[in-house]
Amino acid sequence: MASPDPSLLSLNTATTRGKWGLAQAIEGCARHGLRGIAPWRDLLHEMGVDRAARAIRAHGLIVTGLCRGGMFPATTARQRRANIADNLRAVDEAHALGAQCLILVVGGLPKGSKDLAGARQQVKDGIAAILPYARKAGVPLAIEPLHPMQAADRACVNTLEQALDLCDALDARASGALGVAVDVYHVWWDPKLEAQIRRAGRKRIFAHHICDWLVPTTDLLLDRGMMGDGVIDLMKIRGWLERAGYRGFQEVEIFSAANWWKRDPDEVVRICKRRYRRCC
Amino acid sequence: MASPDPSLLSLNTATTRGKWGLAQAIEGCARHGLRGIAPWRDLLHEMGVDRAARAIRAHGLIVTGLCRGGMFPATTARQRRANIADNLRAVDEAHALGAQCLILVVGGLPKGSKDLAGARQQVKDGIAAILPYARKAGVPLAIEPLHPMQAADRACVNTLEQALDLCDALDARASGALGVAVDVYHVWWDPKLEAQIRRAGRKRIFAHHICDWLVPTTDLLLDRGMMGDGVIDLMKIRGWLERAGYRGFQEVEIFSAANWWKRDPDEVVRICKRRYRRCC
Repeated sequence: MASPDPSLLSLNTATTRGKWGLAQAIEGCARHGLRGIAPWRDLLHEMGVDRAARAIRAHGLIVTGLCRGGMFPATTARQRRANIADNLRAVDEAHALGAQCLILVVGGLPKGSKDLAGARQQVKDGIAAILPYARKAGVPLAIEPLHPMQAADRACVNTLEQALDLCDALDARASGALGVAVDVYHVWWDPKLEAQIRRAGRKRIFAHHICDWLVPTTDLLLDRGMMGDGVIDLMKIRGWLERAGYRGFQEVEIFSAANWWKRDPDEVVRICKRRYRRCC
Repeated sequence: MASPDPSLLSLNTATTRGKWGLAQAIEGCARHGLRGIAPWRDLLHEMGVDRAARAIRAHGLIVTGLCRGGMFPATTARQRRANIADNLRAVDEAHALGAQCLILVVGGLPKGSKDLAGARQQVKDGIAAILPYARKAGVPLAIEPLHPMQAADRACVNTLEQALDLCDALDARASGALGVAVDVYHVWWDPKLEAQIRRAGRKRIFAHHICDWLVPTTDLLLDRGMMGDGVIDLMKIRGWLERAGYRGFQEVEIFSAANWWKRDPDEVVRICKRRYRRCC
């Protein structure tokens, strides 16, 4: 399989967390010739949205996604409204950055709850509540199915099929306002992955996140691997995405408390670039 | 919902691992009034199959499953043949114990491989290879879908739907020779769980394993919780199984290196019984 387009590599700031603030990550991308960046909102707030937007424009970077909206379920109606309000702010921020999408990590079970179906209904209601506002702002919402091991505490949307069922329910005509983010780490295991990527198609795939699944994996959240160090057939999944019509960025998002977060971020980015060419 | 039938609680020896050998577990079940037991093969081999079968019969216990066959995928044809041979021995052992089923933990990716589809094909071929022998021995084979976080290293069958697709392919008439084990820990997160339990029906559900999903979970294998300590709605899932026609045991299988494995097994069994009545 041909190497991926070198101009379509994006850096998610989770990859250099703890070492680089957003200003440094923007400069890092520019210095290493990366054209895409995906900020997390805590770093965005630290830098300030206006300042970040100016720096990103000044370097000609594309924001491949803003991380993140979502986290809809809550115990009380008041909390749910506060979550909705926060999502509307996230839409505004994504708009200010000209982001290609706002990533939705939808949230898990409210504290003390075992009502998974109820949480999923709250997610559906939450997305429905913010969709008109996001559509008006021109910010596509990307539902990111998270690995089932994060169903309780981070996201109760756990397969691409489930995410696409939500898209069908809330935006049946695939208007471009609602779609999915395909993060290989979360979905690589799914026996229906190829079929569901085909089902999603060009109109519903808004983002493609990469990293690798390590064997063994020592932490449910913070032990992701660099592309090529694990068992995910990244090229095969890229092939499926391309055949579905996806032509966008591959965004490197590596949560790695014990390894990559401890290294010099310039080295990390250099290795990302090399592995992207070789393994993705 | 009514409490579960107290005569339908079974102890999987994984729950008292490290403290009790099989002889002790058999005596423990008898002492605490449990009617079911599910041995792991390493403990069975330590005790000896004939001696174990006699002790189990002497106490009037029912073997709700033998753990485990499976582990089919391998790099070489020779290794795959050795795996098949081991599965045939497991069938013999299950027969000797009068086990209600042989649990199949099907195996993950061969070392160094990223070919998940290939591993899944090897699993299918492996089950097909042992099915006639198991059928003749009167030992039902129970495919256990494992949590997707164990797809790489333990089992590449990761949803009930996928397991049932295998059953449809290899035993289309649902003869009773091939079915599934529903372990709540592995499948609780699945948005299609209720529908797939309904699809499975009485003829294909051979086992029901219980424990709980802890928040947070600190290990991908050995941090399972006692029923009631986590977020799984155990009663709801039992209701789905009963509506599908399942009338068998609930088998407690708790891998818990840092907690339950360190406690006095008699205390563990007492708590299992109490939680079974209250939470399951």
